[in-house]
Amino acid sequence: MSEAAQTLDGWYCLHDFRTVDWTTWKMLSSDERQSAIHEFLNLVEKWNSTQTRKEGSHALYNIVGQKADFMMMILRPTMEELNAIETEFNKTKLAEYTIPVHSYVSVVELSNYLPQGQDPYQSPEVLARLYPILPKAKYVCFYPMDKKRQGEDNWYMLPMDERKKLMRSHGMIGRGYAGKVKQIITGSVGFDDYEWGVTLFSEDVLQFKKLVYEMRFDEVSARYGEFGAFFVGHILHEDAVAKFLHI
Amino acid sequence: MSEAAQTLDGWYCLHDFRTVDWTTWKMLSSDERQSAIHEFLNLVEKWNSTQTRKEGSHALYNIVGQKADFMMMILRPTMEELNAIETEFNKTKLAEYTIPVHSYVSVVELSNYLPQGQDPYQSPEVLARLYPILPKAKYVCFYPMDKKRQGEDNWYMLPMDERKKLMRSHGMIGRGYAGKVKQIITGSVGFDDYEWGVTLFSEDVLQFKKLVYEMRFDEVSARYGEFGAFFVGHILHEDAVAKFLHI
Amino acid sequence: MSEAAQTLDGWYCLHDFRTVDWTTWKMLSSDERQSAIHEFLNLVEKWNSTQTRKEGSHALYNIVGQKADFMMMILRPTMEELNAIETEFNKTKLAEYTIPVHSYVSVVELSNYLPQGQDPYQSPEVLARLYPILPKAKYVCFYPMDKKRQGEDNWYMLPMDERKKLMRSHGMIGRGYAGKVKQIITGSVGFDDYEWGVTLFSEDVLQFKKLVYEMRFDEVSARYGEFGAFFVGHILHEDAVAKFLHI
Amino acid sequence: MSEAAQTLDGWYCLHDFRTVDWTTWKMLSSDERQSAIHEFLNLVEKWNSTQTRKEGSHALYNIVGQKADFMMMILRPTMEELNAIETEFNKTKLAEYTIPVHSYVSVVELSNYLPQGQDPYQSPEVLARLYPILPKAKYVCFYPMDKKRQGEDNWYMLPMDERKKLMRSHGMIGRGYAGKVKQIITGSVGFDDYEWGVTLFSEDVLQFKKLVYEMRFDEVSARYGEFGAFFVGHILHEDAVAKFLHI
Amino acid sequence: MSEAAQTLDGWYCLHDFRTVDWTTWKMLSSDERQSAIHEFLNLVEKWNSTQTRKEGSHALYNIVGQKADFMMMILRPTMEELNAIETEFNKTKLAEYTIPVHSYVSVVELSNYLPQGQDPYQSPEVLARLYPILPKAKYVCFYPMDKKRQGEDNWYMLPMDERKKLMRSHGMIGRGYAGKVKQIITGSVGFDDYEWGVTLFSEDVLQFKKLVYEMRFDEVSARYGEFGAFFVGHILHEDAVAKFLHI
Repeated sequence: MSEAAQTLDGWYCLHDFRTVDWTTWKMLSSDERQSAIHEFLNLVEKWNSTQTRKEGSHALYNIVGQKADFMMMILRPTMEELNAIETEFNKTKLAEYTIPVHSYVSVVELSNYLPQGQDPYQSPEVLARLYPILPKAKYVCFYPMDKKRQGEDNWYMLPMDERKKLMRSHGMIGRGYAGKVKQIITGSVGFDDYEWGVTLFSEDVLQFKKLVYEMRFDEVSARYGEFGAFFVGHILHEDAVAKFLHI
Repeated sequence: MSEAAQTLDGWYCLHDFRTVDWTTWKMLSSDERQSAIHEFLNLVEKWNSTQTRKEGSHALYNIVGQKADFMMMILRPTMEELNAIETEFNKTKLAEYTIPVHSYVSVVELSNYLPQGQDPYQSPEVLARLYPILPKAKYVCFYPMDKKRQGEDNWYMLPMDERKKLMRSHGMIGRGYAGKVKQIITGSVGFDDYEWGVTLFSEDVLQFKKLVYEMRFDEVSARYGEFGAFFVGHILHEDAVAKFLHI
Repeated sequence: MSEAAQTLDGWYCLHDFRTVDWTTWKMLSSDERQSAIHEFLNLVEKWNSTQTRKEGSHALYNIVGQKADFMMMILRPTMEELNAIETEFNKTKLAEYTIPVHSYVSVVELSNYLPQGQDPYQSPEVLARLYPILPKAKYVCFYPMDKKRQGEDNWYMLPMDERKKLMRSHGMIGRGYAGKVKQIITGSVGFDDYEWGVTLFSEDVLQFKKLVYEMRFDEVSARYGEFGAFFVGHILHEDAVAKFLHI
Repeated sequence: MSEAAQTLDGWYCLHDFRTVDWTTWKMLSSDERQSAIHEFLNLVEKWNSTQTRKEGSHALYNIVGQKADFMMMILRPTMEELNAIETEFNKTKLAEYTIPVHSYVSVVELSNYLPQGQDPYQSPEVLARLYPILPKAKYVCFYPMDKKRQGEDNWYMLPMDERKKLMRSHGMIGRGYAGKVKQIITGSVGFDDYEWGVTLFSEDVLQFKKLVYEMRFDEVSARYGEFGAFFVGHILHEDAVAKFLHI
Repeated sequence: MSEAAQTLDGWYCLHDFRTVDWTTWKMLSSDERQSAIHEFLNLVEKWNSTQTRKEGSHALYNIVGQKADFMMMILRPTMEELNAIETEFNKTKLAEYTIPVHSYVSVVELSNYLPQGQDPYQSPEVLARLYPILPKAKYVCFYPMDKKRQGEDNWYMLPMDERKKLMRSHGMIGRGYAGKVKQIITGSVGFDDYEWGVTLFSEDVLQFKKLVYEMRFDEVSARYGEFGAFFVGHILHEDAVAKFLHI
């Protein structure tokens, strides 16, 4: 048996994608809509307080295309809290006018394909990556992925050393995008249908394409990567929520 | 032809996943909601009596993410009883406000890749595993799986000895999680779309990820495992049902 | 080109799976529900007469899990009659409260991988298998299947002799279940999405699992079998229909 | 690069599959239903005139099983006309009580794996096949298909000569069904999700199964065929439309 | 690691496919329908102005078959603008009577498998291709595609030189259709589920089939192409919108 990579695990993560049911939303009176928006923004305000206390983080993005109208990405110390937040949102007035279209359950993860002898939990940099305050980047990209186990292309049958070498070269590409793309990897083995979720943040949406495309030529992706659906979005600032939902 | 593994089979099992239709649920008066909750809890009370008599067992969990809002896992001596319970639930008031989103039909199974000469049905430990009272663990994880039959990676073409050896090493990983994760394997060949269901229970949700990830590097999973959708949830105690459904 | 197996073909077959829309069904008055049940049982009575005249056969089963609430399996001498029965059911009151969730169109088939020189249509046993009166067995299992055509595992490229040998050994497993499981094979090449439907009947639901699992280790299934969705159910006697639909 | 087969292309083709929403259809008054049927038959009458003028052809079939209740197959000289007919049907009263469940867009195609030196467009037989008046056969069978491009089994990498040889032997099987099955091949590369549609007509529905099954043992299908969903149906004569829709 | 191809990227692109809900559309009064059409045409008028200023482009096509009733293809300098246009359309009256059925998010892309030493952004021809005004061609064809990564057929493991050579020969086929088919390639790695979108325009719909079929025999497609759903449509001129939606 190949040796399993050790992982470092941080906050639990829920990506929650919704479309707006514009037809029924428009049937509300302007006052009712205002009140639903107000209730939602109050919920976000609570999330803001949590974030200020560094007990979690969150982000709101509009999603381009028909896959969803917006996405809430929520980070919390326990899975239980994610469940509670989801249920709380589901009971709001606004939720009655949204349709759940996709979600992803995972936990912030760092793969420990690192030199040994370091205690990663001592590193402030590592801690900042395990419990990240999500950036207010202009654009987001999310996709889930697996490592392939097919015939000759079976990641999980490779020896640890080979995987380490491949991941190192893979990581070099990511490093080439430092300052341009921020990447958060979340592990979802045992939690959701793929093995990992990848969330990218950038001020320049084109960098997502450049990064993912360049990586696809790297052996880790070329031979071993299997990708799920891609979602791309534009930040939805709180003060733009009312405008987004304005009729 | 390869020799088929013998199995020991216990209680029949139904995993029943539901989402709540919050929009119509909110349209009920508070009294009507109370009465629907009351009726549901009466049903659970009947299940409790059955469990006390050791004639079955059950568990309720909230599911994280949009795949479902809650899951009922029911164990009974006959398939007929599962059918009856399902129909009884479907006729309740609460069921009118839930949407069936997934189910899985199986039977508690122990694979007899064991040394011969033992009569397993004499063993109290075996009986406890075939007719298990489900633990009130904080978290649950469910997923179905197949053994692969693809080109060179064909589990069912392996000789019995090879399969035994592989399963033994696989079992060692599971044993490393003793006390941390309780695992119930249910067989579903001939009953549902995958060959097995795996239900894991733990006080620490992260152990699901660690266990499933570590196993994935083991040849049994790496070469021969095919996995369906994963569901992860948090226990829904009876006295929390009213709060969960409170508007 | 490999020589095609000759088949013997009997009655045409429709498996029709439905869920009950309990929410709208409950909205009817008790009288309306009675009248809908009565109309449905009259239809079944007509099917009974057909069966008595040996001009067809049928069976009703409740299905376990969310895939369906009940299944009607209908055998008739012509495809046209199946079409007419389906339309007749669709026009009933009860049908307004059911949702079609799956169906399968096929014809009772015997594969003539038999010694030559026999005229099978002279054999009363063969005729009884081509035009079977469905047993009132306690449990049913249905699944569709294909023979694989993938790389080295291509059933249709095997020489006739090899296929005959493999099928003979496969048949031996089935024979080991004589008296425990009755099996009806229906061919669906050109009629529906898989090549065959398999319907199993038994007094003991566990025998389905044992049979299908044992066969999976046989080369015919291990290398060449591809399986669709599995449905398992419990017999719905006519005098239990009212109870099943009782609110 | 392998040489592409030349094709001859005739009328454009739309297969349009619908289910009837019986529940809402029954809510209409008998007069309203009559009027909807009348409007639909007027539309068919227009199609009949077109067919009489040999400017197109069409066929109506009831489909067996839940996949659809009926299918309209329409042939026209331009894609634009198919679009117009589809929109015209969608605006009828009857269309309000049908649910579109499947469609296929293609063009009548003859593969020119023929000896060269002939001008096929001079041949009355070829013209009759490119612009066919659909037969009023009792039964229809429709399925889409691809030629495989997978590992060693890659049709599009075969040299032209090899493909010609394989297709010739494949054609011999079809010829064995002359007088029993009429076959119309429509090409859909660039128009719909598979590369071809196959529509078979016969007085004896069992011939569809025999033909498709026999072909499956031929190398062209065994190694290179990939098949989509199969639909089988029974002719819906115009004077039977009212009966079919009668409540 | 293989060297990634450099790309040139132009306007962002949204393909937005809709079906019309004819049943509810007919429930509107004639005046309401007129007013909804008017509002939609005003929106298109704004898009026309943008196009006149060369700050984007767009096209409207009716889609043949049930996949969609019409498609809006929108090109803009930023992803944000696509998002805004989509939301603006979703808030119109007409949108209440349409059902979103498919969308695709991408960016106009030129693959730089070109001789080096040229600065492509200096070329007016290149600029015209990156920021194209969409032609008013009679027919459109859209499909997404991937390059395969499967066993021996792994595009991303090929050396750059090999890929260049293959793409050159592939491009030759396209050039054979110059004047007959205009092709716009949009890249969607990181944006949507496939790697590229292909949009073809032609006065003769048959050319789509000829082009795609001929390319399928080319090694780039034969061994390395994976194709998603195909959509084919007929131009919907603004002055035909009212007729298309007329009841």
